[in-house]
Amino acid sequence: MPKTTVYYFPLKALGEGIRLLLAYGGEEFEDRRVAKEEWPEMKPKMPFGQMPILEIDGKKYAQSSAVVRYLGRKYGLSGKDIEEDFEIDQSVEFYTDIRTKAGAVFHEQNEEAKARMQAELEKNYYPFALKKLDEIIKKNNGHLALGKLTWADFLFAGMYDCFKKILQVPDLDEKYPSFKKIQDTVYAIPKVKAFADKAPKADY
Amino acid sequence: MPKTTVYYFPLKALGEGIRLLLAYGGEEFEDRRVAKEEWPEMKPKMPFGQMPILEIDGKKYAQSSAVVRYLGRKYGLSGKDIEEDFEIDQSVEFYTDIRTKAGAVFHEQNEEAKARMQAELEKNYYPFALKKLDEIIKKNNGHLALGKLTWADFLFAGMYDCFKKILQVPDLDEKYPSFKKIQDTVYAIPKVKAFADKAPKADY
Ligand SMILES: N[C@@H](CCC(=O)N[C@@H](CS)C(=O)NCC(=O)O)C(=O)O
Ligand SMILES: N[C@@H](CCC(=O)N[C@@H](CS)C(=O)NCC(=O)O)C(=O)O
Repeated sequence: MPKTTVYYFPLKALGEGIRLLLAYGGEEFEDRRVAKEEWPEMKPKMPFGQMPILEIDGKKYAQSSAVVRYLGRKYGLSGKDIEEDFEIDQSVEFYTDIRTKAGAVFHEQNEEAKARMQAELEKNYYPFALKKLDEIIKKNNGHLALGKLTWADFLFAGMYDCFKKILQVPDLDEKYPSFKKIQDTVYAIPKVKAFADKAPKADY
Repeated sequence: MPKTTVYYFPLKALGEGIRLLLAYGGEEFEDRRVAKEEWPEMKPKMPFGQMPILEIDGKKYAQSSAVVRYLGRKYGLSGKDIEEDFEIDQSVEFYTDIRTKAGAVFHEQNEEAKARMQAELEKNYYPFALKKLDEIIKKNNGHLALGKLTWADFLFAGMYDCFKKILQVPDLDEKYPSFKKIQDTVYAIPKVKAFADKAPKADY
């Protein structure tokens, strides 16, 4: 049996999708949650100086979306051909655009710039983008693509609490119940649920 | 023969990789360069209200990296299995991180915030990230992954002039000749060269 480890901070964020997919795949893995204090010493050992990292028998896999796509294909959660895989990738890239814009504002230190950027997104971007995302999910039967469960749902579900935090749009669950539903769907899968029930709790 | 169209602004940026791959694939396509004035009327017709868009027989493909990956797989420029595809995706996601950070600063309107963010990247991020990217390319025989030509090189080559512009790191070509070399390699492919020689010129 291969020795599998996930290295990430004690957060869900970019690491949780990887953990959930490994659980879904029935993989035994070490869920290595790296404390802030440990990180400076570990950072230089990581391929891009960042986490999450998936390690399988000493081989390190970095870049969270690439890792999630890889595991998704491994566990039969991708498309049946390049057309279908494209549909998944397209939804994921759109979602990533939203997440990245939200993240940039969330981490902005200049309060004036931050407030202006947030107002700008709330006025000109989020209403359109979140509605679009909601439409995609509705059209896909409660999923991000292909009308069924794919690795994109794992990526989204694992990151959803973090997404809410950085987006700072009040009442997101109520405004777009389809978002929360993806999270619920993924976490209700028996093997995923078994993992999550035992895992350390993290708010986002 | 399918009717193929690429819709994008008269720029290279996110659209050029798609154009170059179609040329590489020997595809006849309409290279529809949309002027700023035309855009407001077209925007609502695009799946995510943005470009680039690839249209094949009426089906629209959006999200540039997803489209480039799709075309790359179609034309035999991907990996031989999920392990190899992962290597490509990992490099692309790392590169995309750099590009996204650079883009966020480039588009920042608050001059104080912009200068601070640029200084921060130049101090704590670019030296490490660009050196890392350079190492990856050297290790891969002048390519972004797998030691050979893949769709990642097309994505990089098409965007390189834009990358330089938003990065604002002086003398990038001289500091990291490996970057420019990928661009040269892709544009030297006969079918790509034939396309580029006839295409409208764009600075970035
Ligand atoms: N594109 C990367 C980004 C990874 C990333 O930003 N990781 C952060 C935590 S979420 C990190 O390791 N930060 C610590 C550091 O950079 O020292 C991915 O998706 O895996
Ligand atoms: N993630 C998308 C981003 C597309 C994007 O940002 N497109 C810009 C031009 S580079 C655009 O269409 N801007 C016009 C608008 O948003 O109205 C992709 O990579 O295709």
